[in-house]
Formats: sequence, structure tokens, C-alpha cells
Amino acid sequence: MSPSSGRHDPAFQPVVELFDHYLESLEDYGAQLCLYWRGVPVVDRWGGVEASEDSVTGMFSAGKGIAALCIAALVESGELELDRPVAYYWPEFAAAGKADISVRTVLSHRAGMIGVPGGFTHEDLATGFSAREKLAAARPYWHPGSDFGYHAITIGMIMEGLFLAIRGEQLQAFHAREIRIGRGADVFLGLPADQDHRYVPVRPAHPDPALQEDLADLLAYWGNRDTLTAVAMNNPARTGGRALGDVSPNVPGIRAFGGSGHAATGTARGIARAYATAVGEVDGVPPLLSDETIARVSEQHSHGTDLVLGAEMAFAMVFMKPTRRLPFASHAAFGHDGAGGALGYADPLYELAFGYTPYPMQAPGGADPKAIELSRVAREVVRGLEES
Amino acid sequence: MSPSSGRHDPAFQPVVELFDHYLESLEDYGAQLCLYWRGVPVVDRWGGVEASEDSVTGMFSAGKGIAALCIAALVESGELELDRPVAYYWPEFAAAGKADISVRTVLSHRAGMIGVPGGFTHEDLATGFSAREKLAAARPYWHPGSDFGYHAITIGMIMEGLFLAIRGEQLQAFHAREIRIGRGADVFLGLPADQDHRYVPVRPAHPDPALQEDLADLLAYWGNRDTLTAVAMNNPARTGGRALGDVSPNVPGIRAFGGSGHAATGTARGIARAYATAVGEVDGVPPLLSDETIARVSEQHSHGTDLVLGAEMAFAMVFMKPTRRLPFASHAAFGHDGAGGALGYADPLYELAFGYTPYPMQAPGGADPKAIELSRVAREVVRGLEES
Amino acid sequence: MSPSSGRHDPAFQPVVELFDHYLESLEDYGAQLCLYWRGVPVVDRWGGVEASEDSVTGMFSAGKGIAALCIAALVESGELELDRPVAYYWPEFAAAGKADISVRTVLSHRAGMIGVPGGFTHEDLATGFSAREKLAAARPYWHPGSDFGYHAITIGMIMEGLFLAIRGEQLQAFHAREIRIGRGADVFLGLPADQDHRYVPVRPAHPDPALQEDLADLLAYWGNRDTLTAVAMNNPARTGGRALGDVSPNVPGIRAFGGSGHAATGTARGIARAYATAVGEVDGVPPLLSDETIARVSEQHSHGTDLVLGAEMAFAMVFMKPTRRLPFASHAAFGHDGAGGALGYADPLYELAFGYTPYPMQAPGGADPKAIELSRVAREVVRGLEES
Repeated sequence: MSPSSGRHDPAFQPVVELFDHYLESLEDYGAQLCLYWRGVPVVDRWGGVEASEDSVTGMFSAGKGIAALCIAALVESGELELDRPVAYYWPEFAAAGKADISVRTVLSHRAGMIGVPGGFTHEDLATGFSAREKLAAARPYWHPGSDFGYHAITIGMIMEGLFLAIRGEQLQAFHAREIRIGRGADVFLGLPADQDHRYVPVRPAHPDPALQEDLADLLAYWGNRDTLTAVAMNNPARTGGRALGDVSPNVPGIRAFGGSGHAATGTARGIARAYATAVGEVDGVPPLLSDETIARVSEQHSHGTDLVLGAEMAFAMVFMKPTRRLPFASHAAFGHDGAGGALGYADPLYELAFGYTPYPMQAPGGADPKAIELSRVAREVVRGLEES
Repeated sequence: MSPSSGRHDPAFQPVVELFDHYLESLEDYGAQLCLYWRGVPVVDRWGGVEASEDSVTGMFSAGKGIAALCIAALVESGELELDRPVAYYWPEFAAAGKADISVRTVLSHRAGMIGVPGGFTHEDLATGFSAREKLAAARPYWHPGSDFGYHAITIGMIMEGLFLAIRGEQLQAFHAREIRIGRGADVFLGLPADQDHRYVPVRPAHPDPALQEDLADLLAYWGNRDTLTAVAMNNPARTGGRALGDVSPNVPGIRAFGGSGHAATGTARGIARAYATAVGEVDGVPPLLSDETIARVSEQHSHGTDLVLGAEMAFAMVFMKPTRRLPFASHAAFGHDGAGGALGYADPLYELAFGYTPYPMQAPGGADPKAIELSRVAREVVRGLEES
Repeated sequence: MSPSSGRHDPAFQPVVELFDHYLESLEDYGAQLCLYWRGVPVVDRWGGVEASEDSVTGMFSAGKGIAALCIAALVESGELELDRPVAYYWPEFAAAGKADISVRTVLSHRAGMIGVPGGFTHEDLATGFSAREKLAAARPYWHPGSDFGYHAITIGMIMEGLFLAIRGEQLQAFHAREIRIGRGADVFLGLPADQDHRYVPVRPAHPDPALQEDLADLLAYWGNRDTLTAVAMNNPARTGGRALGDVSPNVPGIRAFGGSGHAATGTARGIARAYATAVGEVDGVPPLLSDETIARVSEQHSHGTDLVLGAEMAFAMVFMKPTRRLPFASHAAFGHDGAGGALGYADPLYELAFGYTPYPMQAPGGADPKAIELSRVAREVVRGLEES
């Protein structure tokens, strides 16, 4: 009997077999996995500890990709032009010599706006309102455009600030209306009260001593306020080793607000559907984005050794792009992973959309290597289907 | 008795000794080697399997350097300005948001124009006419200017497209008139029927199992359409592991046409003379290029980890520049290597021009390490001559 | 009994203990160490061979940081605008296609102006006057702005050329009046005759065979005129392995002139005070630079693998910035190290200024690893003081 439950197109059996293999061979592991191909769900399965058909959990930075779809919708409508200064839309952002920084620069993690002197408070991070004001007033941490580094915490504030300035509406409200309800994507930038019973708290995986040691090293490095990494991680040394202190989605008020940068929640099914409905027609609903907009927002702008992370990264407009180090999909794909291992993307070359949420956290950094492997097998399947 | 035949200036004896050493110690190996110093041939030798005084073979990407001399001639004449948009000369190139991409950006491998969706057909590659149209209509594979990656197949099409748009004449015709005939350089972008009897087919070297394994890994990577490498190599998985399918110079029609990117043929003598006559007076004929033009087209524009090749590369205007990884000449040099191991360059700092063609293919990637070593010894000789 | 002499604030005892540990455990070693915190000297100690309370020695490139404070003073006064072309101030610099290179580009080591064909003579290097003319007439060694590489010898000439063009006064004269005398910083761009008795010649450390071998390799590489490294190091092969030939500060006339790039002399106390008085009030004297200017000149502009050095480097406006490889202070810091191991910086995040001069030379490259460790312990102390 399969250790996973759910539905799938038999053509994608190799993906399900690998998923089942992981579920069988790992002890403290559960996950949801969902794939769309050509606008139709072809895998929608779950299994293992804690993961059920409708369980919802925290996806951390994978939520940045969902929020970035809302930003892309403003590119689609013409309300946001990438080469305009951020301050054209959001005048307060012009402070401290930032009048000319373009939307393109800031969304490609090139602006150096990775934090503020002294860091953000828990109150700042809970809703981002006060954080945004502090960020708009701050100076860049490097000469804008001269390099790139992961705006780990601030890119969410920037997206929300831009969105509000342009539309007079919260990004979260747009997401709820257009993506969650309008397109039926079970993914949340703000988990409603009537859905909160579905929430399964994020927890660290059963401690692997080697991994724990790695993690301690990482936190010691992140926690040292001397580095740009510490700035971008909000100097977690000040908050007991946790970049976001106690503003994780495990805190009810935090997941109810659903900050774009770190507090999204959802199912794998919801993540996959958000991407699938963004790039193609699903159930007769036209896509959120035209091919032209998809090309613009998924175009790689930054690549190399990330100044904040010290590892190879690549970014489009907020979205992560695959690299040799993290080949989560084809060169045409755009998406985002999250701390703990969640992964979501759309891959126009393969007409695939992908969602994955592990229980408990699988990786201290980003995408669970198992998700990358499941993604690879899915592409093999599609290549076979295209040939037949 | 020397295993090589030919002529050389006794001052360059150390170069010939190393060449002879290679010929003696390697089994299935032959080569032509030619050096000019201060406008005069100082080494013109050949030996080993298949290489004869007048044998001609395929030089693959080393031909890009020869074609780039023709582009440089347009810079010299003022017909081509590097900071103008490509579309100023070639209006069709403005499609898909490419109106502002400059000649400088595209010739320094920064435009992201490494291929087209679905790849090129054999017909496209045979002459490049239809390929050029597809390329002009396509979108970049990254934000133009934001990074660089080897335009392995397309840079030839781009040079040919620009040349034709500016002059109303094929780049190949200009090459034949000005470089091959006008300057007596025995190197061909299009091997004439009356020379075809000189052609020795390209063949892989006697298989070294370790190398074969490396190559298989490389092709598996290149052949995976998921990567930018696969795009730039025209997704060789579709063509049985061969980037160019059956459009190698071994096909008579292909070498007769002589596409700039991959189908050049020639002798080491011809390669060296093309570079020597480009940068200095030879036999009373004034150089193709002035020092000012040489400085402009040999100026390094791109350097670092190549997005397509994943290795350190450096480029001027089409020409390769030496790097720590591939120190084929001094920092002032410009040239190009080719799959199999051919190498050609001019080095203004040493007043050297260099041509090398191995038989059979020596290296899966670019310049034969033996050529780089021969080049190093030649510089030692010149330093000695300068001091005396 | 402590092996070091001098004064210190007891709170900084851990720094002094480490300094003493080095002095005790190493044989042929001496040093001066000085730290300011919040405008007050908190460590001012010396010990070991040759280093006395008032000894002065050559600090090589660490002097670039001192000269850069003078350039920053022109930014402060508005006399120098970073986005103007160098040629706006210094018309001769427009030669050879350099009319548009900005001050920002050249001060961030991005202009490619690392040397001149044939190199500089000893006469050129002695005072820099003729060198500056040659440099202004020369071509860049790469496309300006496209990459960065340490302008090891020329950045001093560039600072002096800009300063003279703007003020009609030698940078050295300004330094003497405003920093050395005006702010009492015992550091010299030109050691006056009445101070020359304090000079202790620079000498190589007792030869460590492994280090000597490394150094020989390094010099063989630097000495090969083929590379950009050789160009930037003035091709030391021509001068017996010494980049600057016999123009070291050990030559009386050289240290009397005090070229900004390589011939500064001083005490650790003087270096620390130059930085301390630049960024904050000391002894009632207002700082040389406002916070706004500090932010502009300490902003990181270049980062990655340095094209000249082949190692990770980061630069602001002339100043070095800390990197993962060379974490000499916090991300907010700006300073410079020197061949032999001297180090000076200001770190606004910690309100620290730091000066260190080793006797004899400790490192073939830049900052003495011991200085980096002393700096790290100093930040630990400050974090403790901030918490209490």
C-alpha cells in the first residue's frame, strides 16, 4: 500500500513512487506534493507525519513567490513599470539618497536595502507597517546596483510598500481576492480565522547532530552583527538565534496577518495552483499574467555569489531562478523556496507548476533536496509525454 | 631527425623542440604550428598523423576569431559603432524588447541571445540565414547586460547578421577578398571547391576512457534542455549528443559555406597570418586594423564565471581574452580557441601572431593545453630576443 | 610582567592580553597597537623587536587609507563630486578615450587604470609627478566599469592628481596641515627631516621557508609581464622582484616625499588617530567628515574576485571594505591594510578606530592575521561594554 494518499495521473507514477520512497524510508517526515501540467492537476498527494489532505503550515520565504505574483499583476496591468524609480510610486523611499533606485534594482535584490541600523523590532515585523517606514528612511548597505544580496526579510516589506502605494490596497487583500478566492489557490498571506483549525505548527526536524552543528555555525555567523548576513537576517543574536524572533507563523496573530516575506501559510496544492493559474488557463479562468509579463518578471537579473548568503543564487523580479547549485527546475522557471524546505514554481518550458510543503522542517536553508529531485523526475515524465 | 617538417627561425628553436617532443611522445597526434613575430613567420612546421604542409581541417570556434577580424574591420572603417543599438543596423533585431541592446553588449556575450525556443534545425545551422531570422525575433535568456555567457552558436549568426546589414555583403565574401586573398591567409570561411581536396576530416582522438567519461558527463549536462548551457549548445540531446547535429565541417556543403561560428577551416599558417596581417604590416601590406581599433576590439568587457560554461572566461568584442584558467597569451592578446584544440591569436605586447591546428581533436573543450604551453615558450623566446 | 608597554583602558584588557600573547610567543616580532573608542584612546601599546613608543616605520598601502581621508575631505567640502568625470577636474585625464570615466569609477578600482605600457621608472615612482602624466595619457586595461581590480600603485597617483587639480595644493600638504598637525595624527605622507631619526627601516621577517616559497611563487606570477597582476605591480621582474624597485620608504628621499600609494610612514597611534578624528570629535576638535560623507565614501562599490589579485576583495571610495576572506572589522568599517601587515580603519558601527604596525614585515600580502584577530577581540569588548 502506498504510504501517500491522494490522486494522480498514472503518467506521473514515477514522481509518486519517489515520493512514496521518501515517505517510507524517512522516520520523522511528512509532506504534501502537488503538480499541475498544462493547467490540470496531475499529482495531488500527501503522507507521513502531520501532513494531511487539508493541513496548512508555514512556508516562510516560499511565500515571497506568492506575493511576487501580486507584484507581477501590477506589471501586467501597467500600474507598475520596472524602470521607474521606486520613489515615483512610494515618495518616502526617496530619503537618504534613494530617489533614483529603480523598481528593477530593488526587486532583483540589488538595492542594498537589506535592513536598518539597529534592526527591526518584533512589533515592526508583526505587520511590517512601522518596518516599512524605517526601511524607506534608511540608507543602502552597498552602492545600489553594484552587487546583489538576498533581501531576506525586507523584500516582503518592499513588495507590500510598493503595492499599497500604487493601489491604495494591501497586497494581502489583493492576494485573497484574486489568487486565493478568485483562482481557488489554497495558500494564504493571512490565514483567516475560519481556516485556522487547519494549521499545523512548524517545528524543527528530529535533531541530526551533524546538521545541528552546521546550524549552530550558521547562526553564529548570522548572529554576528558585523556582517551583511547578520543585517539581512535582522541580527538574530539579539533574538536568541532566531532572525524573526517570535514572529513565526506559529504565532496566531502573525499568520493571521501573513507578512509577504516570512509568514505565508498554505498547502502544496495551493502553492501549485497559485503558479498554475498565474501562467495559464485553469478551469476556464484566464491566467493572471500574459506571456509578455511572465517573460519580464521571470527574466534573470542577478546571478553569482550572493553578497548576503555567500553562495550561488540567481534572481528575477523577486523570484528565484534555478542555478547549478540549486537546479530546482528549467532555466525558464521562476519560483521560491522557504526555510524548512517548501518549494513552489512555475516552469513555462515544461508547462509545469509545482508545490511542496514538508513536515517538519527538512533543511535549515532553502528548498528540500527531495523537492528538487521530485521536480527533476517530473520533468523526465513530461519529456516522455511530449515524445509520445 | 625532427619529427616535424617545415621552416623556422633558429631563435625559436625552443618552441620547435617542445613541438617535436609532443609529436614524439604522443601516439595518435599530429599538428600544424605557425608563429609570426614582428610581421615575419618565425615558425611554420607540421608533423605527426594527418597533418601535412597544406592540409586543411575544421577549426570550429577558432573561426569566430577570424570572423571577428572582419567585424573589427567595420569598426576600423567607422561603419560600425560599438555603442549603437544592434537594431540601428539590423532593424529586425529590435523585436521582443531588444531595441536598445548595443553592439558592445551583444559582441561581449552579454545580451543573453544564446539560442531560440525549440532550438535551431539542421537547415538553420547550415547557412545561418533562417537561424538569423529566428534569433532576431527571439527574447534574451537573461536581462541584457546583467551577466555574460558564451554565445557558442549564435555569435556567428550575430556577426554575419550585423555584417550583412551594414555592408550588404556576406561576411564570408569580405573575408575571402580582404583576408584570404588580399592578405594571403590560408584560412577559410567557406572552403572553395578547388581547395577541397586538401581537407582532412575532423575526428575524435583515440578514446581515453577517463576523458570519454568526462565528455559523457559534459554532454549529459549540455544535453539536458533544462539549462542555459543546453540552450547555448542547441540542446544536443535532440541531435544524438552533437550540438550541431550533422552540420560539422566534415559535411562538404557545410565547409563550402563556412559559417562563422563553427564551420571555418584552415591551416595553422593561415590562422597565424590572418592575425599577423590584422595587427601589423606583412610583406609590405598595411595592417587591416589600426592600433586604435585593436585597442577597442581587444578591450576586455566580460570576465568571471561564464553563465553558460560555468567556468572562468573573459571576452573582448567576440574575441577571447586570456584568464588565470586559460593563460593562452599576455593580457594584451585577443584570439579564439576551438573545440578539438585549435588556437589563434594576436599578442600586441609580444608582437606575436599564433596559429595551431591539432589532428585529431585533442580536447573536448577549447584550446589544447599543448598549444598554451607552446605559446608560453614562444613568449620566453621573445623576451630573450628583446633583451639581446 | 607584560611584554608590551603603554597605556590602556582596563575594559580592553582582553585585547592587550592577546597582543601580549603574540609578543611572548613569537620570536622576531614587534608591533604597535592603538585603538580609539568613542573618540578616546583605549589601547596605546607597543612591544617586541624594534617597536618603541615613538618609532615610525613604512606602512605601504595602509597609507592609501590615510590619503583617501584627504579625498573624502573634498567630498565633504563639495569640491569633489563622485559622479563627475575625472577629466572635469583633471583635463589631461581625458586622453585615450577616458573623457567619461567618473570619479566614482576610478576610486572604486573599476577604471582599469592599473599601469602604463612599459611600466613606471624609479624616477616616476619617487614623486609621482611624471607617473601621473603617463597615467593620464594611457588607455585602460579593461573596459572601464566592467570589472574591478586593485590599482595597487596607481590609485595613489590618481588621488594626488585629483587633489592637485581641484585644490592647486599637494595632497601631502593638506594631509600635513589638517590631519597630522591639525588633528595631531602621528602619521606621515612625507616624513619631515626633524622626525627622520624616529624611522625604523622595513625589513622582511626572519625567513620562514614555506612562506618564502609562497612568496617566490607570488613574485614569479607578479613578475611575469603577461598578466594584469604584473602590470598593476609595475612588472617587478624588471626590478629584481620588487614592484617598486628601490623606492621603498627605506630610501630617505622617498619617505621624505611620502607618495600616497606606497611611501607613507607612521605609528599605530597616528593611524588610529587619523581615522578617529575623521569620523568623530576628539579632544574637542570636530570631525573631518560628516556622517553623510562617511556614508558616501565608505559605501561598498566593488566586490568579488579582484581581477588583479585573483582573490576576494571589496572596495569603497579607495578604502577597503571587510570581506568573508578578510573580515578586518564590521560591514560599516572602511580602512586599508599594507604589505607587511599594517592595518588602519574606522568602524562607525562600533565607534572604533584602529591602528597597527608590525615589525618586521609579517605577511607578504596585506593585513597581518594577528591584527584581524586583535580587531575581532576589540569588537567583543565593545559589545560587552554596550550591554553593561
